[in-house]
Amino acid sequence: MSKKIMILPGDGIGPEIVEQAVAVLEAADRKFNLDLSFEQGLIGGASIDAHGEPLTDAQLEAAGQCDAVLLGAVGGPKWDQLEREIRPEKGLLKIRSKLGLYANLRPAILYPQLAEASSLKPEVVSGLDILIVRELTGGIYFGEPRGIRTLESGEKQGFNTYVYSESEIERIARTAFEAAQKRGGKLCSVDKANVLEVTVLWREVLDRLAPEYPDVELSHMYVDNAAMQLVRAPKQFDVMVTGNMFGDILSDAAAMLTGSIGMLPSASLNETGFGLYEPCHGSAPDIAGQGIANPLATILSAAMMLRYSLDMGEAADAIEAAVSKVLDQGLRTADIYTEGSKKVSTAEMGAAVVAAF
Amino acid sequence: MSKKIMILPGDGIGPEIVEQAVAVLEAADRKFNLDLSFEQGLIGGASIDAHGEPLTDAQLEAAGQCDAVLLGAVGGPKWDQLEREIRPEKGLLKIRSKLGLYANLRPAILYPQLAEASSLKPEVVSGLDILIVRELTGGIYFGEPRGIRTLESGEKQGFNTYVYSESEIERIARTAFEAAQKRGGKLCSVDKANVLEVTVLWREVLDRLAPEYPDVELSHMYVDNAAMQLVRAPKQFDVMVTGNMFGDILSDAAAMLTGSIGMLPSASLNETGFGLYEPCHGSAPDIAGQGIANPLATILSAAMMLRYSLDMGEAADAIEAAVSKVLDQGLRTADIYTEGSKKVSTAEMGAAVVAAF
Ligand SMILES: [Mg+2]
Ligand SMILES: [Mg+2]
Repeated sequence: MSKKIMILPGDGIGPEIVEQAVAVLEAADRKFNLDLSFEQGLIGGASIDAHGEPLTDAQLEAAGQCDAVLLGAVGGPKWDQLEREIRPEKGLLKIRSKLGLYANLRPAILYPQLAEASSLKPEVVSGLDILIVRELTGGIYFGEPRGIRTLESGEKQGFNTYVYSESEIERIARTAFEAAQKRGGKLCSVDKANVLEVTVLWREVLDRLAPEYPDVELSHMYVDNAAMQLVRAPKQFDVMVTGNMFGDILSDAAAMLTGSIGMLPSASLNETGFGLYEPCHGSAPDIAGQGIANPLATILSAAMMLRYSLDMGEAADAIEAAVSKVLDQGLRTADIYTEGSKKVSTAEMGAAVVAAF
Repeated sequence: MSKKIMILPGDGIGPEIVEQAVAVLEAADRKFNLDLSFEQGLIGGASIDAHGEPLTDAQLEAAGQCDAVLLGAVGGPKWDQLEREIRPEKGLLKIRSKLGLYANLRPAILYPQLAEASSLKPEVVSGLDILIVRELTGGIYFGEPRGIRTLESGEKQGFNTYVYSESEIERIARTAFEAAQKRGGKLCSVDKANVLEVTVLWREVLDRLAPEYPDVELSHMYVDNAAMQLVRAPKQFDVMVTGNMFGDILSDAAAMLTGSIGMLPSASLNETGFGLYEPCHGSAPDIAGQGIANPLATILSAAMMLRYSLDMGEAADAIEAAVSKVLDQGLRTADIYTEGSKKVSTAEMGAAVVAAF
């Protein structure tokens, strides 16, 4: 049965990099008979220019009827003066919340060919391949009550609530267990169960579910230790799962371990397996239209889409292998260029990945 | 006027390493006419053996009447079977809470001589010298309400409260501003003010106090970015200040950047400047009594004591310079030994620091 993918190029370098990712998907389609179909849509500044808002309800509905969304990036100085509610970024927040995309998958992968880019010693990070699964729609970032109140003493007090229910924990845990099944079979759950009750419940739910995934080895780690271990020996991890706030901190730290954030894809999934796929980097308006942006993070996002939303793991593996091959060939866009390698354009990089299939 | 220091050697390697630190303090006393006096006391397992509890009220009171406390380490397998309330660690928690030690100072220093120990590239971390000031008695680790409740739907929900009042923020902020004045004059406050109201108030208070410290350059950073920047370019920081939970995560990550946790001192201060000083490492019962433990973290804790509680910065500088000198001489205890250096005992290392004055 045909799988429909909504393409939302967005702003800045978005259209250029998405174009290459679509070309790679089409190549994968030809090779593996995936029966993909594509629809184009607007989000962010592009939608503001056309419709006066960063994501129309009609566009949202059309996206929701697809099997997955591939997004470039949104935003740029052109729309910075708009009031907060109709800024380009609101389009992203709207699609995430309206489609219930509670599971954020953030791989931190360091291709050995790029190991020098890291601030860590090559032997510590070369070949790093971990996946952080972050809960994205709950936890302290959304918890109530919250605010700043004035105490009887007259001084102000700020407060937020870190809260998770069993069902919220269970669904993100299942996403993580399933991701571990598709990868190395190891899942490390990160909490602060020695201090925070909300994470005591988190740990209980993970332990309760573990017997349903006998092929996954579950471990637990306190968040302060996890931050240390990511610095000390990040390759010890396969999949990590944690709440929204700890995931925010740890996934950014893990991404930085690679030294090449421009290479990293991401996914945001809901319960049905529907997902939004996008590079971790932004819309880079300063280099938009010059044809020099790095399309690899978007191409790797497309590979994640095949693996996690479309159950086409073989094609995903092939795309990732092709990316590794072009790096072996010494091809580099400007952002990852080092002396002795061959500097290529956005389109040349995309074509090289297609050719490496 | 004479300054009185309470010496609490504790358990395991505690007595051995504290003995060397006291010898260094005595040497500093002679050289700089500090007029120090010392009192010996019991904490942890040593106190349990003598009095049946990890810290007696009499000992607590005696400590509170001193100007500072120098502590070794507590705990060991001998006391692991005791019930939670009278374990050695409870002595530490008691002295911290009863004496109101709300400011935890955690330096992350990497002597260039030990740069190879880090998982980061030497050029990224060699000479690292940052200080993380962590609020220690408030925030989400202590916030109420907290617990696990059953919702009407029958499912459980865990919750904790992240809360700070203006006065709590102000006192830790002042500690951090003052520490920055004693160091490089730069203070980076870490929050998540784009999402969490409690840290919006945190940022407000820091901004309000800044004009009182015109010699300190205040900046703000979101916690996820701070975690990234610690990995990418940690030497950009001088002093960082943050709440209890973020401080827990970031100070452990920063310590691990050095690769030599056995070298790191710490301080916990209250409003009067009284402080408890101790190495970051534990009591290492496995090597206790062998005379091979590294006394440098405790010696550096003694230097912090002179700087932060006794206002004897010159003597503190001299101790730190002496430590650097013995490292230059190639002296290493077993934990930091590398080929080509000279392996020394606990007592030899202490004597070398004294001789390097
Ligand atoms: Mg973030
Ligand atoms: Mg910790």
